[in-house]
Amino acid sequence: MLTTELRELLNQMTIEEKVGQTIQLSADFFSEETEDITGPMNEMAMTEEKKFQIGSVLGVTGAEKTIKLQKEYMEKHRLSIPLLFMADVIHGDHTIFPIPLGLGATWDPEMIKEAASISAKEAAAQGLHVTFSPMVDLVRDPRWGRVLESTGEDKTLNKHYARAFVEGYQGADLKEDLTKLAACVKHFAGYGAPRGGRDYNSVDLNENTFREHYLPAYQEGIDAGAKLVMTAFNTIDNIPATGNKRLMREILRKEMNFNGVLISDWGAIGELVPHGVAQDNKQAAELALEAGVDIEMMSAAYSEHLVELVKTDKSLETLLDETVMNILVLKEELGLFDNPYRGADAEIEKIAIFSSENKEVALKAAEKSLVLLENKKALPLDRSEKVVLTGPMKNSHDLLGAWSWKGDKTKTPTLKEAMDNHLGKDTVKVIDETEIFNGAQSFLIAELQEADTVLVALGETSEMSGEATSRTNIQLPKIQIELLKELRKLNKKVVAVLFNGRPLDLSEVTPLVDGLVEAWFPGSKGADAIVNVLYGVINPSGRLSMTFPRSVGQIPIFYNQDNTGRPSEQGKPADKYLSKYLDSENTPLYPFGYGLSYTTFEYTNLRLSKTEVTSADSIEASVTVRNTGLSEGTETVQLYIRDKVGEVVRPVKELHDFKQIRLKAGESRIVNFTISEDQLRYTHADHTVKSDAGEFLLGIGADSTIELTHSFNLIN
Amino acid sequence: MLTTELRELLNQMTIEEKVGQTIQLSADFFSEETEDITGPMNEMAMTEEKKFQIGSVLGVTGAEKTIKLQKEYMEKHRLSIPLLFMADVIHGDHTIFPIPLGLGATWDPEMIKEAASISAKEAAAQGLHVTFSPMVDLVRDPRWGRVLESTGEDKTLNKHYARAFVEGYQGADLKEDLTKLAACVKHFAGYGAPRGGRDYNSVDLNENTFREHYLPAYQEGIDAGAKLVMTAFNTIDNIPATGNKRLMREILRKEMNFNGVLISDWGAIGELVPHGVAQDNKQAAELALEAGVDIEMMSAAYSEHLVELVKTDKSLETLLDETVMNILVLKEELGLFDNPYRGADAEIEKIAIFSSENKEVALKAAEKSLVLLENKKALPLDRSEKVVLTGPMKNSHDLLGAWSWKGDKTKTPTLKEAMDNHLGKDTVKVIDETEIFNGAQSFLIAELQEADTVLVALGETSEMSGEATSRTNIQLPKIQIELLKELRKLNKKVVAVLFNGRPLDLSEVTPLVDGLVEAWFPGSKGADAIVNVLYGVINPSGRLSMTFPRSVGQIPIFYNQDNTGRPSEQGKPADKYLSKYLDSENTPLYPFGYGLSYTTFEYTNLRLSKTEVTSADSIEASVTVRNTGLSEGTETVQLYIRDKVGEVVRPVKELHDFKQIRLKAGESRIVNFTISEDQLRYTHADHTVKSDAGEFLLGIGADSTIELTHSFNLIN
Repeated sequence: MLTTELRELLNQMTIEEKVGQTIQLSADFFSEETEDITGPMNEMAMTEEKKFQIGSVLGVTGAEKTIKLQKEYMEKHRLSIPLLFMADVIHGDHTIFPIPLGLGATWDPEMIKEAASISAKEAAAQGLHVTFSPMVDLVRDPRWGRVLESTGEDKTLNKHYARAFVEGYQGADLKEDLTKLAACVKHFAGYGAPRGGRDYNSVDLNENTFREHYLPAYQEGIDAGAKLVMTAFNTIDNIPATGNKRLMREILRKEMNFNGVLISDWGAIGELVPHGVAQDNKQAAELALEAGVDIEMMSAAYSEHLVELVKTDKSLETLLDETVMNILVLKEELGLFDNPYRGADAEIEKIAIFSSENKEVALKAAEKSLVLLENKKALPLDRSEKVVLTGPMKNSHDLLGAWSWKGDKTKTPTLKEAMDNHLGKDTVKVIDETEIFNGAQSFLIAELQEADTVLVALGETSEMSGEATSRTNIQLPKIQIELLKELRKLNKKVVAVLFNGRPLDLSEVTPLVDGLVEAWFPGSKGADAIVNVLYGVINPSGRLSMTFPRSVGQIPIFYNQDNTGRPSEQGKPADKYLSKYLDSENTPLYPFGYGLSYTTFEYTNLRLSKTEVTSADSIEASVTVRNTGLSEGTETVQLYIRDKVGEVVRPVKELHDFKQIRLKAGESRIVNFTISEDQLRYTHADHTVKSDAGEFLLGIGADSTIELTHSFNLIN
Repeated sequence: MLTTELRELLNQMTIEEKVGQTIQLSADFFSEETEDITGPMNEMAMTEEKKFQIGSVLGVTGAEKTIKLQKEYMEKHRLSIPLLFMADVIHGDHTIFPIPLGLGATWDPEMIKEAASISAKEAAAQGLHVTFSPMVDLVRDPRWGRVLESTGEDKTLNKHYARAFVEGYQGADLKEDLTKLAACVKHFAGYGAPRGGRDYNSVDLNENTFREHYLPAYQEGIDAGAKLVMTAFNTIDNIPATGNKRLMREILRKEMNFNGVLISDWGAIGELVPHGVAQDNKQAAELALEAGVDIEMMSAAYSEHLVELVKTDKSLETLLDETVMNILVLKEELGLFDNPYRGADAEIEKIAIFSSENKEVALKAAEKSLVLLENKKALPLDRSEKVVLTGPMKNSHDLLGAWSWKGDKTKTPTLKEAMDNHLGKDTVKVIDETEIFNGAQSFLIAELQEADTVLVALGETSEMSGEATSRTNIQLPKIQIELLKELRKLNKKVVAVLFNGRPLDLSEVTPLVDGLVEAWFPGSKGADAIVNVLYGVINPSGRLSMTFPRSVGQIPIFYNQDNTGRPSEQGKPADKYLSKYLDSENTPLYPFGYGLSYTTFEYTNLRLSKTEVTSADSIEASVTVRNTGLSEGTETVQLYIRDKVGEVVRPVKELHDFKQIRLKAGESRIVNFTISEDQLRYTHADHTVKSDAGEFLLGIGADSTIELTHSFNLIN
C-alpha cells in the first residue's frame, strides 16, 4: 500500500481500532505455551472484543500456529489489518549461536551478520515478523546479568555489531525477502548502566558520556535501517525512558532521525506507576503516548485508558494517529497487507530449522567466540595425552545460555559427548568432582594419577546470567575454586573451560590453571567448538569485548577510561596522591581486546603516511604483522587513538578500527588503516559532534594495553 | 576599607601585583616544616620577586611564624597588602575531634558547631585566617578513602552539618571576633562520586541527581556565609570542575549566588593538562580564570602565565580584576588591612591550644560519635567483669585519623591507657593477638580462660582512609577476621571496637561478636569516650550517616535510593523479574540512621494535625517516644517522607527532619515536627525546584528502615 492508502486506512479506523494497534498480547492470551515469559505478568484488562483489535502478538511461533491465528484474526477484524508476530530471537532461534557477549568476542561482524541471517530464516519460516534484537546497550558492569546479551563495552565495536545484526536480520528488502525479520534496537537508552549493577535500577550517566559512549550503537542500528526501537526500563536523567519525552521525541526521533516503531519493553508503560512518575495507568498511558511510544508490551495502560484519553483530549488523537501510522507502515514494509502470512510455511519450517548448514555456522561462530585466557604450555592438547575430565559442567547440556527459548538443550552435546565424538567413545576418563574432595585421597584415584592433563569444566548455570540475574559476587562458586586447589596439588597440567555469561573475577583461578578457555555459553555446537580449540583443530582467535576485572571492587572498569588529573601511570609507584587504589592495581585481570593464540604475532614497522591530516584528506597507518609461531592463526589487529586535548576530558585511548587477518606460520603482512577527520570527532560540551585541531597519539597492536607510540596532528 | 577604597587599591596595582594575589605558596617556600603536603609537589616557577607579591600562604602555622612572615611580607610588598594564612583544619587543630564521618554520626549539628568553634579558636591564635573546611561532598561509595572527611550520604543531614561547620568557624563577625576563621566549602562539585570509588577519577552523575542530592549541602554552606569555595579535582559533565565555566560561573556564582573567593584544590589548575582539556599550563590558566577561579593552589599556571595572558587579552584583565577584588574583599572581611596579624598571639596560643576545656569537648564529641552496631547482652561491661584486651589496635595511639596535622598522637591515650585510667592500672589484662593464633592453644592462656569478656580492638590504620586511599576491598584485614574466629571458639563474650574511616563490609564480623562498637577515628579523647561507652558511663547514641553495605558488590548503596519500575519490596521473594540481586539482599548490613542504645525506645501515637497541606499552612506530625528500657538515653527521632508521584523519579524515602531527645528510663515525650510545602520541593526536569500537588507518605522512627505508615496530601 502507498502511504496515501495507509493514511486512508487510518481514517477509516475507529479510536478503539487505532488503540488496538498499539496493544500487544503474549502467547498465553491465545492458549499457547507461555515458555518465553520474560517479565512479571500484569493484568491486561482484555475483553474478547478488544483482543481481536490488537496489533501485535508476542511469543507465538510456529508456521501452523501463526497462520491459524492470523487467519482467525483477519476474519474477525473489521478492517482485516494483519497482526504482527514478534518474539525474542536473540542469539539464534532453534539453532543457537554463542551468547551475544561471546559473539562480541569474535570481533567479526560478518560472522554476526551470518548468524543473524540464519536466525531470521528460522524465525521467519515460523511466521515471525519482528525480533527483539539486537540489544546494543553498552556495558561496563559485570554484576549486571544482562551483560550476557550485550556485545561489550566499546562503542566502535558495538556499532559494527549493531549494523551486522540489523543487516543480517533485515536483509536488503523485507517485503521481497520472506526469510528476513524486522530488527528492534534495544533498549533505548542506557539500560546497560544500572546503579550497583542491579537490573532495572536507575542510571547515572552525565549527558556527555551518555551521548559520546552510549548513543552511538543505537544510532548505528537505526542508520542500518532497524525498523523498531525498544524503550529501556531505566531512567535517563531520572525520568523513566518509557515516559521520557525529551529522550524519545527530541533525541531519538529528531536528533537520531528514527522514524520507525517505538515499542515499550515488557510492562514498561505500566511500570511508570511504581517508578512514581505516574499516579495510575491512565497517566502512564498519557506519558508514554506523549513520549511517542507506539506499542505497549504487556501492561494495560494503553489498553485500558487510551480510548478515554484520546476522546477527552483531541491533541492526543494526533499523537495516536502518528503512532498508528508508524505501526501500519511497518506492516506495509513487511508486506503484510499483501501477504499476511509472509514467510510462515510449515514445509520450509521443517527444512530450515536446525539444519546441518545452520549448525555448521553455529559451530564456526562458537569457535570464533572462544577466548584463550591462559596457556602455560598446556594447550593445544595432543590426542595421545591422557586426559581426565571433571568439574560440574562436564556433562552439562546447559550450554545455550539465557534467551534461547527455542533452543533444545537435549540436542546440545555436552563437553564429554564432544570429547567422545572427537577422540572415540570414553577415551577421556571422567571423574566426578565430588570424588576429588577428599584432599590427599585424590592421589589415590588411578585415573588422576595416570593423567597428563586434568580438564575441568567450570562456570555458572545459565540461570545465573541474563535478565534479572544481577550478582554482587562475580567469582566462580567457592566450591569450584576449592576443586581447582585440589587439582593443583596433583602436579598435573590443569586446563579449565569456563561457561558463563559475564566477565568473572578470575583472580583466584588464574594461578591455579595452566590453560584457561573462556567458552561463554557457546550455543548448539559449543562443545564441539571447545574440543576443536582444545585439540588445536582450530587455533583460538577470540578477543574480549568486555574487561575482566581483578575484583568486583574495581567496577566500573573499562579500557577507555577518562584521563584524570593525577594519572597513576605517570607517577612513581610510591607517589601517594594519584588516582589509584591502595590494595589493587588499576589495571584489569584481562583487558579489552585480549585473547591468546597457539601462535604468536609480532608487530613491526608502524608507519604513518604523514603526520598531518585535514578534513579534506586522510592518513594511512600501516604495520607489519608477522606470525612468529609455528601454526597458522588469526590475529585481530587493533588501532587505538588518543585525542591529547579536548574541550571535554577524552579517554586515555579508544579503539578506532580493527582488522582480522589470517597468517600462516612465518607469514607476514602489511595491515593498513585509513584515518580521517570524521573518525576524530567527539561530543562537545554543547552536544555537537565535531573534531578539534591538535595532536593525536596512535598505536596498533594486539589488545587495548598497547602503548600509543606515534603522533599526528589534525589541522583545521 | 570601604569597597571604593578596595577598588582604588586595585587600581594602583600592576598586573604583576594583581596576579600575585591569585597565587598561593606552601610552607616549604618559607623554610617551614612541610608536614602537611597533601598533593604532588609541582614546579612553582617562583622567583624571589614574585614570592613577595603572592596573596596567600598554605600551611604556615604558629603565632610566631605567621607574625614574622606577615611582617616581612608587608615590608617587602609595594602596597603592603597583607597575606592570607590558610591551612587544613579539618576535624580539629591541636585538639582533634572525631573524623567528619564520626561527627556525622552524632546527628548533632550543635556539637559540630562547638567543635568547629574550638578548631577556629586554636587555629586563629596561631595566625590562621582560613581553613579548608567543611568538606560537604555527599558520599555513596565507601571504597573512596575520603568518605572519612564527609559527614555522610544524606543531603538534609549534610546541610545541617555544613551550616554548623561554617557558623562554628566563622561566628557572627570575622572582623570583630579574632578567634574565628573564614570557612571554605569544598569540593565544588560532586567530588564524592568518583567512578569505581577511585580518588580523582571522573564523576558520572546525571544532572537531576547532581542538582537534587549533591548541590544542596554546598548551597547551605554558602547560604551560611562561607567566604570561600574550593574547586573539585573531578569532572562534571566530563569537564574538570576547575576549568568548568558553566559549573562555576552559571551554577556556583549565578544560580547559587556565591560571591566569595573560589580557590583551586591542590594543583588542580595545572591538572587541567593531564586531564587533557588544556595543552599546557598557559591554556590551563586561561580556562581557570575564565571559569572564575580566584586563587591557584600549588600549580604554576597563574604564576607563570597569567601576566602574559592578561597583557595580550584585555578581556582577561576584567576577569583578573574581579578575581583580585574577591581576594581583597576577603582580606578586608577578615580585618587584615587594619590588623594584618589578626588573632595571631603567642600568649593566647599557649592557653588556647589543646586546653582541658577543648579536650572536654573532644571527649563529648567522641562519645556522641560512637555507634553501637551490635549488642547481644554483652554491653555495657560491669567493672567487676574480668576483661581481656587484645587486637592490633589495643595499644594504638593512631586514633586521630587522617587530616589531623597538628594532632599529637603521643598525647592521644590508647584504649589500654583509657581502660587503665577507668579501672585502675593493669586491671584489664592484655594479650597479644599473636599469642592467640595457635588455635586450640588459646585455651591454654590463663587470662583468656578466666575472662568473662574479650575486648578486641580492630580496624584500619589511619593511612588506610583519607585522601588517595581508595580500596577495592572494604573488609577488615583477613588476619583480624581470623582473630575473631579464634576468639569465638573460646565461648566468651567477644566485644569488638572498630577504628576505621569508612563504612566497612562487616558481614563476616557480625556473627563473630556479641558487642560491636564503631569508634571511627575518635580523636584526642577517643579512647576515653570508648571506655565510657563500654562501661555504660555514657549510653551510646551515635547513628550512622552512611550505609554499611553487606559487600563491596552492593556499591553504590544508600537509603534514599530511587523507586524502580520493579521494586523487589513489592514482589514475592520468588518473583524473578524484580530489581534485586541473585546472591544478596538489596538491604545493607547496617542502614542509614541506625545505632543501638543500652535502653530501648518505643514509638506510638503517630499523628498528623491534618492530612492536607497548602503552601500557606503546615502540618504538625507528632509521635510519642517512650524509653522502655532501664537506663537514661538519647534517641534521634527521624522523620522520613516519600513523595508518591513526581515529574522525575523520587527516592523511596527521604530524611526530612530529626530531633534528638534525652529520656530517663520509663519517661515518654511527644515529639513534634512541622511539615510545610517548602520541604516538599525537589528538582524538576527543567532544574526548577518546586513542589507538586499530590500524596506523600510519612513515617517517624529510629532509622531509615521504618515503614511510612501515614499519608497526607499537598494541595496547590
